[in-house]
Amino acid sequence: MKKEVPHSGWRLKLHEVIYGTHTTAGKVFDIVLLVVIVYSIIIVMLESVPRIDVKYHAFLNISEWIVTILFTIEYILRIICINRPSKYIFSFFGVIDLLSTIPKYLSYLVVGSQYIVAFRALRLLRVFRILKLVRFVGESNNLLRALRASRTKIFVFVFFVLIISVLLGTIMYLVEGPEHGFNSIPHSVYWTIVTLTTVGYGDISPETGFGQVIATLIMIIGYGIIAVPTGIVSAEYSAQRKKGQVTPPKLADGEACTDCGSEVLRADAKYCRKCGHKLSEK
Amino acid sequence: MKKEVPHSGWRLKLHEVIYGTHTTAGKVFDIVLLVVIVYSIIIVMLESVPRIDVKYHAFLNISEWIVTILFTIEYILRIICINRPSKYIFSFFGVIDLLSTIPKYLSYLVVGSQYIVAFRALRLLRVFRILKLVRFVGESNNLLRALRASRTKIFVFVFFVLIISVLLGTIMYLVEGPEHGFNSIPHSVYWTIVTLTTVGYGDISPETGFGQVIATLIMIIGYGIIAVPTGIVSAEYSAQRKKGQVTPPKLADGEACTDCGSEVLRADAKYCRKCGHKLSEK
Amino acid sequence: MKKEVPHSGWRLKLHEVIYGTHTTAGKVFDIVLLVVIVYSIIIVMLESVPRIDVKYHAFLNISEWIVTILFTIEYILRIICINRPSKYIFSFFGVIDLLSTIPKYLSYLVVGSQYIVAFRALRLLRVFRILKLVRFVGESNNLLRALRASRTKIFVFVFFVLIISVLLGTIMYLVEGPEHGFNSIPHSVYWTIVTLTTVGYGDISPETGFGQVIATLIMIIGYGIIAVPTGIVSAEYSAQRKKGQVTPPKLADGEACTDCGSEVLRADAKYCRKCGHKLSEK
Amino acid sequence: MKKEVPHSGWRLKLHEVIYGTHTTAGKVFDIVLLVVIVYSIIIVMLESVPRIDVKYHAFLNISEWIVTILFTIEYILRIICINRPSKYIFSFFGVIDLLSTIPKYLSYLVVGSQYIVAFRALRLLRVFRILKLVRFVGESNNLLRALRASRTKIFVFVFFVLIISVLLGTIMYLVEGPEHGFNSIPHSVYWTIVTLTTVGYGDISPETGFGQVIATLIMIIGYGIIAVPTGIVSAEYSAQRKKGQVTPPKLADGEACTDCGSEVLRADAKYCRKCGHKLSEK
Repeated sequence: MKKEVPHSGWRLKLHEVIYGTHTTAGKVFDIVLLVVIVYSIIIVMLESVPRIDVKYHAFLNISEWIVTILFTIEYILRIICINRPSKYIFSFFGVIDLLSTIPKYLSYLVVGSQYIVAFRALRLLRVFRILKLVRFVGESNNLLRALRASRTKIFVFVFFVLIISVLLGTIMYLVEGPEHGFNSIPHSVYWTIVTLTTVGYGDISPETGFGQVIATLIMIIGYGIIAVPTGIVSAEYSAQRKKGQVTPPKLADGEACTDCGSEVLRADAKYCRKCGHKLSEK
Repeated sequence: MKKEVPHSGWRLKLHEVIYGTHTTAGKVFDIVLLVVIVYSIIIVMLESVPRIDVKYHAFLNISEWIVTILFTIEYILRIICINRPSKYIFSFFGVIDLLSTIPKYLSYLVVGSQYIVAFRALRLLRVFRILKLVRFVGESNNLLRALRASRTKIFVFVFFVLIISVLLGTIMYLVEGPEHGFNSIPHSVYWTIVTLTTVGYGDISPETGFGQVIATLIMIIGYGIIAVPTGIVSAEYSAQRKKGQVTPPKLADGEACTDCGSEVLRADAKYCRKCGHKLSEK
Repeated sequence: MKKEVPHSGWRLKLHEVIYGTHTTAGKVFDIVLLVVIVYSIIIVMLESVPRIDVKYHAFLNISEWIVTILFTIEYILRIICINRPSKYIFSFFGVIDLLSTIPKYLSYLVVGSQYIVAFRALRLLRVFRILKLVRFVGESNNLLRALRASRTKIFVFVFFVLIISVLLGTIMYLVEGPEHGFNSIPHSVYWTIVTLTTVGYGDISPETGFGQVIATLIMIIGYGIIAVPTGIVSAEYSAQRKKGQVTPPKLADGEACTDCGSEVLRADAKYCRKCGHKLSEK
Repeated sequence: MKKEVPHSGWRLKLHEVIYGTHTTAGKVFDIVLLVVIVYSIIIVMLESVPRIDVKYHAFLNISEWIVTILFTIEYILRIICINRPSKYIFSFFGVIDLLSTIPKYLSYLVVGSQYIVAFRALRLLRVFRILKLVRFVGESNNLLRALRASRTKIFVFVFFVLIISVLLGTIMYLVEGPEHGFNSIPHSVYWTIVTLTTVGYGDISPETGFGQVIATLIMIIGYGIIAVPTGIVSAEYSAQRKKGQVTPPKLADGEACTDCGSEVLRADAKYCRKCGHKLSEK
């Protein structure tokens, strides 16, 4: 049985500020948060540049501490102001938020752990909510459906590409051999994928005549088969677009479920689409 | 209240020559202008080649002065012969025309300013008018509408690509590290985008086995997701093409509004589509 | 006249395990087989890495022998338990299975022959059966039909690309010449294909101004004509998708013909689609 | 007024052999011709490889002479056996045939002229006739119509790409400068196109942080706008495909006009589609 604790006044308010975007305070909170996220990513990037780190180490270190503390407070507040925190903690954004917060603490315990900050980039996905990009997402629903419909076909395609790469990579290893930079089969398969996807670094390139003939073949295959995923996505998207020409539902203006913190997408929703909690009437 | 000063004779004539393309003089003016623009771009390019600049410096310098003076005269005439010059001055082409004209003057005041000439390239867009490419533009209307309809989706796509790049770039920095050329996270993100877009310079390339595995993954992602923008544009263009199969409106034969200098696109237009000025009867 | 020898009990059972996937034993067999195939490919790859081969040579050699013996047993069993082994032996998978088995034996007779193992990668195609990807294949039927319909057009396209490459490659050889790395016409044609397919290794790149102009031309051609195969596949797939919106036939649950070992695809099949043998009633 | 000289017996026969493909002799002639063309291209390629040329110079030289004489005879016969040779001489294939024949003669007069042989590659286009690829061409009619319909749009697209390249190339020259390999604006524009088309040689690559940011921008633009030509071709081809689903006309079985040598495409043709000459009844 669900416990339906009515929110106390301050928690409801906090919830509106942190999870909602339909009040002024909510909007300000989200914009400030976005700025802090971008700032935190820039700090991490700059810390990795030796020239800059040497010069501004103290400043960057303090900045990092400030960001970490802000993220910690935000994380705690997010947990406090909903009824069922576990729903948030184990949601996609909950995990990302935690991973964005802890690296500074962990860096004193585990060497190299400060690099989990990489996941902070994923926090930027929140920008879609903040900039009212819910509308955008709504618009790209057809696209998402098309991608989902294409999924198995593209998986099969990638699998074929990998099998072909192992086959052609082994052949190239035999033809060129270690004396021309194709040191081993895995290395040779790597080169094949570099060529097949038309990336072409040039760190290794065939030197024998026969090797260049095979390379040519691989390039033309790669050039040709890129048509396959594109063709799939085009056709599926085109089909979804035709199907999807019904009036899109009216969107909610930035509320969130008070129980699990999930966003409310449709204006006419009566229950949270994630946890089934009854939403408050407006 | 709009002031409706009737054009004096010579200004009306000048207007027809400079802005219009339906008189012989107008056509000649436009073709001469196009030649001068192309010439001015070639001069700038040649000046930047040391071997050529040393040899022909005086000639190039004089050419540049002549072009600058011609552009200055043209700019002044363009302003004189319309009723509301500010409309032209702050229009896209007005700004481009100014930026194309001033660098030679500025080069005596501000060091490096002569490089604004880069914007001269944009003057080439006028070629579409001159070669009666209005018709082309008319034909590509469906395309433009398709691109506009795809805009938000492609923006979302690019944004995702950037987030993925920051994430994967940071991971590569951790895996390869400065000793293999991945000096810093920004540098590593740059490398990720080079790989994801299948450009693949090869100025940096992964050297550890694990790094090459991740690189392979990035390439396959890049090879796969290029299908997304292509699919969107294909489907949208296909849809616009079907919608747009109505008789296209008759095009005007190269006149321009006497008030703000905007081109008149449709033969049956009674008012300027930019400033609302009543067009003269033919 | 076909000889219709009824299966003896143990052979029928063996047949169900090896060729079928609808019994538990059949599923286990297929999964074990898949693991052995993947393992055999990894061994071959690791053997080619000098650093690893030196260290674990004995282990890898023994592993290779075990895999070879397992494959030999499997190959013999496959032949024993069907009525007409020649059908299997000369089928696509029959040849691949043989080529995957013999290299270790051959390596004592013919130098370099151990590299036929490359073909083991193709055994991975069996994964599609094992993971019940028959369903996937069923789903991609439209795709396959679209690719078949595009085949001749893409062949013509590739042929044109090759002719253009020979033409442009020869021109580049004349313009750049051996002193800039374009040693011969075949080498120059190779470079042209590297550029046209946008791979761009950079092992050779034009150095004269005129050579760079032609290179630019080649790149833009390559960038433009990639639209052709993509356009073909998109349109054909879209057409097949519309045609193919009929109820797909019910799929068989993993049986195989007892006569030739071909898979049975449709649940309502009465005769083998490969050899016409009457299938047993269920 | 057209002169309608009836063919004498031997000329008519020769015409059937050389221009036609519906008699056995005609088929043999075409296949022999194709072999000679391929052989002639291989000779030219091998001659350009120093290692091979040194060893087999005499052989290659004699081969070249034989091919040249065969082509000369063929060219003369082609002229003799039609009524209006000038139609053939100034047709596309007429010019190509001449250019494929003369280089050996010219090589004694003009230095470097032997390289016109590059155009021999274009003779390979005849393969389409020989292999009864007329049918292929018939099948790709929709494709050709789609490409023709896309032409102006793709031209506008390429023009935009060039303008953007000049603009971004100049900016990169200012940012990176000659000290990082961006020697001049033309060189820099070349680099921009290399990047925009995702070729990415890596002979020049940005080294300053800001340069890499701009490079990133260029790559993403290039990655995005490749969707445009693809989208156009997809949509146009899809549209042509729908339109073109009428019964294709019955094809002629390999005859050619006796007056100008053009191929007859449709079985029900009464007059040559190129010169209007009345075709003989069958």
